[in-house]
Amino acid sequence: MTRIAILTGGGDCPGLNAVIRGVVRAAVGRGWEVVGIEDGFDGFLHPEKCRVIGLEEVRGILPRGGTILGTTNRGSPFAFPILREGKVELIDVSDEVISRIDLLGISGLIVVGGDGTLKIALELMRRGVPIVGVPKTIDNDLLETDVTFGYNTALETATDALDKLHSTAESHHRVMVLEVMGRYAGWIALESGIAGGADVILIPEIPYDIERVAAAIVERGRRGGRFSLIVAAEGAYPKGGDRVVLQAAGGKCVVERLGGVGEKISRELGSVLEMEIRVTVLGHLQRGGSPSTFDRCLGSRFGVQAVELIEAGAFGEMACLKGRKITSVPIEAAVKNLNLIDPAGEMVRHAEALGIMLGR
Amino acid sequence: MTRIAILTGGGDCPGLNAVIRGVVRAAVGRGWEVVGIEDGFDGFLHPEKCRVIGLEEVRGILPRGGTILGTTNRGSPFAFPILREGKVELIDVSDEVISRIDLLGISGLIVVGGDGTLKIALELMRRGVPIVGVPKTIDNDLLETDVTFGYNTALETATDALDKLHSTAESHHRVMVLEVMGRYAGWIALESGIAGGADVILIPEIPYDIERVAAAIVERGRRGGRFSLIVAAEGAYPKGGDRVVLQAAGGKCVVERLGGVGEKISRELGSVLEMEIRVTVLGHLQRGGSPSTFDRCLGSRFGVQAVELIEAGAFGEMACLKGRKITSVPIEAAVKNLNLIDPAGEMVRHAEALGIMLGR
Amino acid sequence: MTRIAILTGGGDCPGLNAVIRGVVRAAVGRGWEVVGIEDGFDGFLHPEKCRVIGLEEVRGILPRGGTILGTTNRGSPFAFPILREGKVELIDVSDEVISRIDLLGISGLIVVGGDGTLKIALELMRRGVPIVGVPKTIDNDLLETDVTFGYNTALETATDALDKLHSTAESHHRVMVLEVMGRYAGWIALESGIAGGADVILIPEIPYDIERVAAAIVERGRRGGRFSLIVAAEGAYPKGGDRVVLQAAGGKCVVERLGGVGEKISRELGSVLEMEIRVTVLGHLQRGGSPSTFDRCLGSRFGVQAVELIEAGAFGEMACLKGRKITSVPIEAAVKNLNLIDPAGEMVRHAEALGIMLGR
Amino acid sequence: MTRIAILTGGGDCPGLNAVIRGVVRAAVGRGWEVVGIEDGFDGFLHPEKCRVIGLEEVRGILPRGGTILGTTNRGSPFAFPILREGKVELIDVSDEVISRIDLLGISGLIVVGGDGTLKIALELMRRGVPIVGVPKTIDNDLLETDVTFGYNTALETATDALDKLHSTAESHHRVMVLEVMGRYAGWIALESGIAGGADVILIPEIPYDIERVAAAIVERGRRGGRFSLIVAAEGAYPKGGDRVVLQAAGGKCVVERLGGVGEKISRELGSVLEMEIRVTVLGHLQRGGSPSTFDRCLGSRFGVQAVELIEAGAFGEMACLKGRKITSVPIEAAVKNLNLIDPAGEMVRHAEALGIMLGR
Repeated sequence: MTRIAILTGGGDCPGLNAVIRGVVRAAVGRGWEVVGIEDGFDGFLHPEKCRVIGLEEVRGILPRGGTILGTTNRGSPFAFPILREGKVELIDVSDEVISRIDLLGISGLIVVGGDGTLKIALELMRRGVPIVGVPKTIDNDLLETDVTFGYNTALETATDALDKLHSTAESHHRVMVLEVMGRYAGWIALESGIAGGADVILIPEIPYDIERVAAAIVERGRRGGRFSLIVAAEGAYPKGGDRVVLQAAGGKCVVERLGGVGEKISRELGSVLEMEIRVTVLGHLQRGGSPSTFDRCLGSRFGVQAVELIEAGAFGEMACLKGRKITSVPIEAAVKNLNLIDPAGEMVRHAEALGIMLGR
Repeated sequence: MTRIAILTGGGDCPGLNAVIRGVVRAAVGRGWEVVGIEDGFDGFLHPEKCRVIGLEEVRGILPRGGTILGTTNRGSPFAFPILREGKVELIDVSDEVISRIDLLGISGLIVVGGDGTLKIALELMRRGVPIVGVPKTIDNDLLETDVTFGYNTALETATDALDKLHSTAESHHRVMVLEVMGRYAGWIALESGIAGGADVILIPEIPYDIERVAAAIVERGRRGGRFSLIVAAEGAYPKGGDRVVLQAAGGKCVVERLGGVGEKISRELGSVLEMEIRVTVLGHLQRGGSPSTFDRCLGSRFGVQAVELIEAGAFGEMACLKGRKITSVPIEAAVKNLNLIDPAGEMVRHAEALGIMLGR
Repeated sequence: MTRIAILTGGGDCPGLNAVIRGVVRAAVGRGWEVVGIEDGFDGFLHPEKCRVIGLEEVRGILPRGGTILGTTNRGSPFAFPILREGKVELIDVSDEVISRIDLLGISGLIVVGGDGTLKIALELMRRGVPIVGVPKTIDNDLLETDVTFGYNTALETATDALDKLHSTAESHHRVMVLEVMGRYAGWIALESGIAGGADVILIPEIPYDIERVAAAIVERGRRGGRFSLIVAAEGAYPKGGDRVVLQAAGGKCVVERLGGVGEKISRELGSVLEMEIRVTVLGHLQRGGSPSTFDRCLGSRFGVQAVELIEAGAFGEMACLKGRKITSVPIEAAVKNLNLIDPAGEMVRHAEALGIMLGR
Repeated sequence: MTRIAILTGGGDCPGLNAVIRGVVRAAVGRGWEVVGIEDGFDGFLHPEKCRVIGLEEVRGILPRGGTILGTTNRGSPFAFPILREGKVELIDVSDEVISRIDLLGISGLIVVGGDGTLKIALELMRRGVPIVGVPKTIDNDLLETDVTFGYNTALETATDALDKLHSTAESHHRVMVLEVMGRYAGWIALESGIAGGADVILIPEIPYDIERVAAAIVERGRRGGRFSLIVAAEGAYPKGGDRVVLQAAGGKCVVERLGGVGEKISRELGSVLEMEIRVTVLGHLQRGGSPSTFDRCLGSRFGVQAVELIEAGAFGEMACLKGRKITSVPIEAAVKNLNLIDPAGEMVRHAEALGIMLGR
């Protein structure tokens, strides 16, 4: 009997369960067996975390956020954190992982993950593990797919927050700042800001000029707008200011924690404006919740597609969406760069035409 | 001062207000004036229904369903219903409409509508009216755009209904039938069905065999599934049975009213199965509600795009979405045929791989 | 070890799982064991439907609609439908049910149900079964509790539907009729109508005069309101017209199926008004969905309260809410009459003061 | 013509617009005129902020959060902040406010507000202003009404956040801390915690023992629960630790800003537990959003009731809900104390029976 495996890695993302369910249903329909690996690549190191999952295990999970397989965004088989003499040390356990994969006797491993997880997959692939990828990113920062699951749900959460803040901002004549996800790419900020009627949107791709932001709010007040809504991606930073840099080394992703851009903007504006300013940090709420129809549907189909890719022997490929079509691209192409907003591009032009101030 | 006009035609659709707001904001930003025409093309016949709308009129409408301009799906300037001696007669009032448009002194008319409305627009275009189109369809049955606004929101409503029916079906061990929109194209049924975990999906593109449907439910019961969820597009029909036909003549669309496919399926199954069967007709709920983030964003951008098309003198073009890009196509191409589901295509294959029964 | 049992009877209702979870958690906390009876009283007749449920079985069910125990609104131990020679016959199986309950060795049986189910419970109680009740009704038609779980969630579904219909009614200048649950009591119609901005609300407690309804809509149009929203409880009926009567005999509830009041009102109005009229029947959607906070909280607390009632030996009592307090009343008092709207009472007066037409 | 006035004071709260609409509709139905005072009591000082509002002004506001009249939680007529020589000074402007009220020639002033605003109203009442009150509090900390509008909607927002965090906590095996409103009263934390399946709930009424909290999480892990959800009211504080005190003087309310209890708990737990801990501060999201059915209905009815109170000359009274009945109580009684959770009371007992750890 053909046996395949699946794992989910990196941060939580609505739609992961849809992928898992899609994989199991498509595989069982072919008479295959699916081994679910718990907690990302870590699971391979613990035999009890590798268990067969069938139709019963995936029953009722489609509308549920999270992943029944568990996930982690700590560590990689090539830099696995262990505690030695009271200190965390990163060691390479990839040989062990690969031998465990061999023992499982699988024809293909489906890796569902974002940039970091897929880079690890690529590394294992080069060491002979037959892998197909399924893209996962809340931030929409993966190249080579029009979009992936989770992003649509996160957008709804962010827009819902803007709708909620809108009426309070208006009633109290306040400036409300909403900090949303987006370390390198400002997609969530930009699209939810357009949808939620934001007056100012600050994204990592366009370093902001706080004086111009303040001037725009004052000008808006002069024309009768007694409140303002600002959406800021967590990775937004001032013109001339510092920016967090992605340090990537050998499939390992070290990212520094960003420090409250919302609070920072609030302080900067507070010294210039006379209006009350309030900050809301949306945080983990963006990773949770029942996935939207779009995300459940796309996740389910990516799951099926991953099984079809294994069937076709198309290892090294990643499922993706192009227009109306589900297709695939080499994982390598997808992780080469990040999908960033073009400051001179169409969506930015549209936002500015809508009267939104983009920090510049 | 450049003056443009905008009207919304056909059935209600979430996101129309986003388009109107986008048009007004982009136009006012250019120093232009926007005339809003109320109640579709009818508005031209009533001077009081043609009024300038500015930033104040579009304030706060982004999250609201419906259209502040009003709409209608009765009549066309080429076949306008009037009451003469107690009977409805269809007369051609296009000359009057065109002369009124001339009087308004507009540089461009933005027509937001579906297949029917856009065909009328095309006709007026041929008579010299400078028109650009914005596609609108709940059903997703328009060609030449990956998708348009409203569809995403309708999908959420349908999936939410399935989620609600799911637990009741399960608790009562029932067959629940949900009838959704989709006269010619089964997109809402197919995508909400995939997302809502439907067991059977019936679409107009695949005439159903009721005996096979019943057999699938019985087989599911045999394997432990004590309930079933069926989603049926309103235009679904049995193999060998009658189907409503679209009669198009001179920009005029005559469509017969469909009769309760949900009830019909329930009756047909009831004579075969011993389970309780319940039908829910979702109806107009699918056209209402606050538009989703996706629809607000796409609607807003289509609004801007329509203004840019007028600026570029690209009359006869319709805004559209291709992959990640907003672009345009000739209206003529978009209304030539309907965007139907390919019974041999990818999405149907994916649905079947997920274990969904498609009536065949 | 103390062993208790729980069953859920009658129609589906959001919050049932919260009650079950509350019972299990409170019982397990006391070192007790809980037997879950599947599919209402029917479950006693099938040993395989009586199984111990512990903490694991109730994990994650709080936000889920439906009931993990299954339910049914067919039959009663005193009038149990069986198929004999091709015909359904109602036989008394109460002796068997009672002896099965004895065999289970339970100290108390928690019956979660509405009017019908609780009347059966009362009958079994008189035959010696130690029962405590938990009230359940979507319609809010039970006396002796301010409200019970499920009603709040159903109201949200109905109001959400009104919000959705509102914008479409407005855009199309239509009359929209929404038919909601409420066979004898019009609570859902009245409260969702107030919350959803209905213009007309028709309830069973006030037979309607269709001419006055039409006149109110015409008058509203005269003052500029080009659309109207009507909410009708399924049990609403015209002044002087027929009304379905509840036939109760020996703990048995025979209710005839009501026939589309929404369609009826639409026909009646259609012959008088010149506006387009559209009907939506909300149906089973009102019984589904994730329970609201209020319902999850009340359900959970009723579950705990039921366990406390058993502990106190307060058999024959039903948990209830009075003001801010959870307390209990005799089941007998709760099922004596239905909780109907007082046509001369406060809520009706408030509705009319808000400008809502109540059919009279 | 009888003329009345209405103002909304204090923090934003879903349902304020329902009250305003209820007042206007009930008053206009009586042939009265309503003056809307903008931005709380401040509005009286600015003639342009006192304007007649009729049916047109309240059209479509029922489903909208915020208040069309604006509000403020800064200052009181008895301690009004003005800028003198670069410093903020609090002066008594009550004489001016009272003479402006006299000039408006109103028969009654409806004050919609919480503890602080109603205390100001009481003071003005003693100076001869004919006032009736409508209670408003997100926190549910007002005595003499079972509940008021806004609280139900805030609960939904908090529970929805818990639902979102739940799946992420589970997928990542984390401790998630959600900080919700509740400075003195822990109602939002307690009820949303019960509804959202929280493992630990920390409220101001029960100072927490962090070691016991940690022990409870460890014990939960030992029994297989690999994640934990903690809900903390913003006013929660450790046993033996400091607590913010309400300083009330002459109708003036000075409250110090609370400092991130969520972060504090996270730090405290982080030094004891080995699990990842994440904090989400819900903040202003709890004050926004479309009001729930319950809140729209209650707000509308309070509006009508306030008009009826003026009609009856019942000045000094406040509308309130007792069980199923809308009635009234003296404002004085309502603001005498806060409505706090009884640590030995029923709801706490229920929560603990459900297995929830309450910090003690």
